[in-house]
Amino acid sequence: CDGFPDEGSNESCEYMYFLFLALFLMCLLRGLESFSQLVYQDDYNLYFVNKTEIEDFPRFQFRGLLLDTSRHYLPMPAILKTLDAMAYSKFNVFHWHIVDDPSFPYQSRNYPDLSSKGAFHPMTHIYTQSDVKRVIYHARLRGIRVVPEFDSPGHTQSWGKGQPDLLTSCYKGKVPSGTFGPVNPTLSSTYQFLNGLFKEVTSVFPDSYLHLGGDEVDFTCWRSNPNVQAFMAKMGFGSDYTKLESYYMENIVNITAALNKTSIVWQDVFDYLLEIWKGVPADYRAELGRITLAGYRVLLSAPWYINHISYGQDWRNAYTVQPQNFSGTEQQKKLVIGGEVCMWGEYVDATNLTPRLWPRASAAAERLWSDEEKTSSVDKAFPRLEDFRCTLIRRGIQAEPLFVGHCKHEYSGL
Amino acid sequence: CDGFPDEGSNESCEYMYFLFLALFLMCLLRGLESFSQLVYQDDYNLYFVNKTEIEDFPRFQFRGLLLDTSRHYLPMPAILKTLDAMAYSKFNVFHWHIVDDPSFPYQSRNYPDLSSKGAFHPMTHIYTQSDVKRVIYHARLRGIRVVPEFDSPGHTQSWGKGQPDLLTSCYKGKVPSGTFGPVNPTLSSTYQFLNGLFKEVTSVFPDSYLHLGGDEVDFTCWRSNPNVQAFMAKMGFGSDYTKLESYYMENIVNITAALNKTSIVWQDVFDYLLEIWKGVPADYRAELGRITLAGYRVLLSAPWYINHISYGQDWRNAYTVQPQNFSGTEQQKKLVIGGEVCMWGEYVDATNLTPRLWPRASAAAERLWSDEEKTSSVDKAFPRLEDFRCTLIRRGIQAEPLFVGHCKHEYSGL
Repeated sequence: CDGFPDEGSNESCEYMYFLFLALFLMCLLRGLESFSQLVYQDDYNLYFVNKTEIEDFPRFQFRGLLLDTSRHYLPMPAILKTLDAMAYSKFNVFHWHIVDDPSFPYQSRNYPDLSSKGAFHPMTHIYTQSDVKRVIYHARLRGIRVVPEFDSPGHTQSWGKGQPDLLTSCYKGKVPSGTFGPVNPTLSSTYQFLNGLFKEVTSVFPDSYLHLGGDEVDFTCWRSNPNVQAFMAKMGFGSDYTKLESYYMENIVNITAALNKTSIVWQDVFDYLLEIWKGVPADYRAELGRITLAGYRVLLSAPWYINHISYGQDWRNAYTVQPQNFSGTEQQKKLVIGGEVCMWGEYVDATNLTPRLWPRASAAAERLWSDEEKTSSVDKAFPRLEDFRCTLIRRGIQAEPLFVGHCKHEYSGL
Repeated sequence: CDGFPDEGSNESCEYMYFLFLALFLMCLLRGLESFSQLVYQDDYNLYFVNKTEIEDFPRFQFRGLLLDTSRHYLPMPAILKTLDAMAYSKFNVFHWHIVDDPSFPYQSRNYPDLSSKGAFHPMTHIYTQSDVKRVIYHARLRGIRVVPEFDSPGHTQSWGKGQPDLLTSCYKGKVPSGTFGPVNPTLSSTYQFLNGLFKEVTSVFPDSYLHLGGDEVDFTCWRSNPNVQAFMAKMGFGSDYTKLESYYMENIVNITAALNKTSIVWQDVFDYLLEIWKGVPADYRAELGRITLAGYRVLLSAPWYINHISYGQDWRNAYTVQPQNFSGTEQQKKLVIGGEVCMWGEYVDATNLTPRLWPRASAAAERLWSDEEKTSSVDKAFPRLEDFRCTLIRRGIQAEPLFVGHCKHEYSGL
């Protein structure tokens, strides 16, 4: 069974009733998915189920998958099909990294210039309001939440095209160089715009979480700009630009909070619900210890950057990750609420998305769903995952093979 | 223009006439392909061609691509689509590695047990005679030769299932262990069978080449078998099993020659037309020098094992290969007649074949087609290849992206 209680629950009777109903329906959904995977066909195409008793519940409440629709545009069918496959692997959060430097495909009601000037193409490479609604609806029917990410103040080059004065003008010596840096955190117009945008976004995306990004802010441009320098002096930040970054993040987290949403940020911002994305195991384990010691809740994605491919059975790396394998108390370990598989888009679009995701992401999904003890052997997982990938093929998901072999029903290549 | 003269040409007038006609038609085909790639559409969907003069001919006469249909079965649409994409990149040889250890999908007229017992499935995972004819026909219309490979004496586990006594019975001490090794080279029944099989194969595949494999022969099983030991003694081979291997290869090359076909073998067999498949650049360059010094013609595939993937723009590695960059005379360099891109099937089936092949294989294709001097810059090739991959998408080939960006017409993910 699969619950996902929100932060700061209102504990009225009516609310509890809906919560239990939702939990019950979610149980039913995951249970039916398990049941469907027990059914098999014999050589005469008759259907069978072995008599089985199942006691099952998810190990982590947050089992996410990130798609990046900015570095490459993903047409709607690619997103909807990914949601189908997510449900088959019991993922329950679609983290939609919808905009970034290269393009701004979200068509805003209030700021239409963002996509008309910032998308790869203003008509064919955008997500309309109705597209977004369709994604959310399709996800909801499959027990999947949609958490949008509007990453700032870095990763916003495409925002600048449709929203003048939003980005910091970089200087070369005493004159503007003509290039732009991160969002300008010194202007009140910036926060007015973000308030307007987030107000719209939180009304379009009903989920209680909003991902604010906050990663990889390059201070070079801020440093070069005399107005930013003056603001730093006025605020008493000295030359510590992390203070300016924190000032910015605090402001937008407050905007989000006023809209009754919980913020998620990448680990670069030490606060709120944090998502760990950097480093080799030694590093991310240390970070898990550090962040949970400070009492913050945390999501792990660092070892699940599934866009990184290598030759051979690299699903084994995804499978052997243990999110709670770090030095800390039981209390600390409970603060790891789950993890995310990230499919960043530098080298991925609809042509190769599905075979790169599946069944590799399913390996991480089992790690996030199943009991640690019962899934300690990666070799025992192999035939199970091999069988599951044939199930995916039969259901129309172009999942790639793990090794030499065949499925009863192959993907035709048509 | 693109010629591909056969070995030992019959120089009668009639033959020459057909040869010229074939060459002329091939020129026309490649020229039309070039022309089609000059056509572009403006924003109003009108078609344009810039006035251009082209003087063009292929640098290498043999520009091959290998598909492996034994480790995974590739349904017909996947093969036919690959042939389409090959023509767009001016490949002219489809090297069909049709059988190997894991499965024997070729349905033989004379030896039906080979596929009925050796294929992954006797009905759904086979290539019928009419399938093979269709592949050859589809290829011919696109100026592509089909060279089948029946790799032996190693890589034949699947052959043994339908052809008793073909494989060597391995011994543990003085008793058979129940496992089997390479083809048994000591029995006359072996050569009778191979004569029958190759007679059929060469009548089904009209091409003048037949690839006989000959790679990676493990001597352990031969060594363990007392009958093989006795044969070694009788032949005076001592304990040098490479002599037994050569004896076998000579026999089957003679069978092929009697059928008027030219043999291709992997570099492990030092003779005939050799295909270099092993090693890092230092190694394969040394091998190119060695083999051409001995006067043999050679094909290069070692740096184009395109099944090996890595994160990022690994097409650059395929592009920067220079097949004639080894120590040797001009005469030696002319013995490099071309190369092959190999897509081995351990981790590849129809689900991921196309995005792994294209446009990465197209990088090798330009190297095999174009003048060395005019294609020395990999950075200048980048926008050209990026544009070409959008052409592939528009033509229905699910070619993956090289980097961040978009095509006017995206693959939908349906």
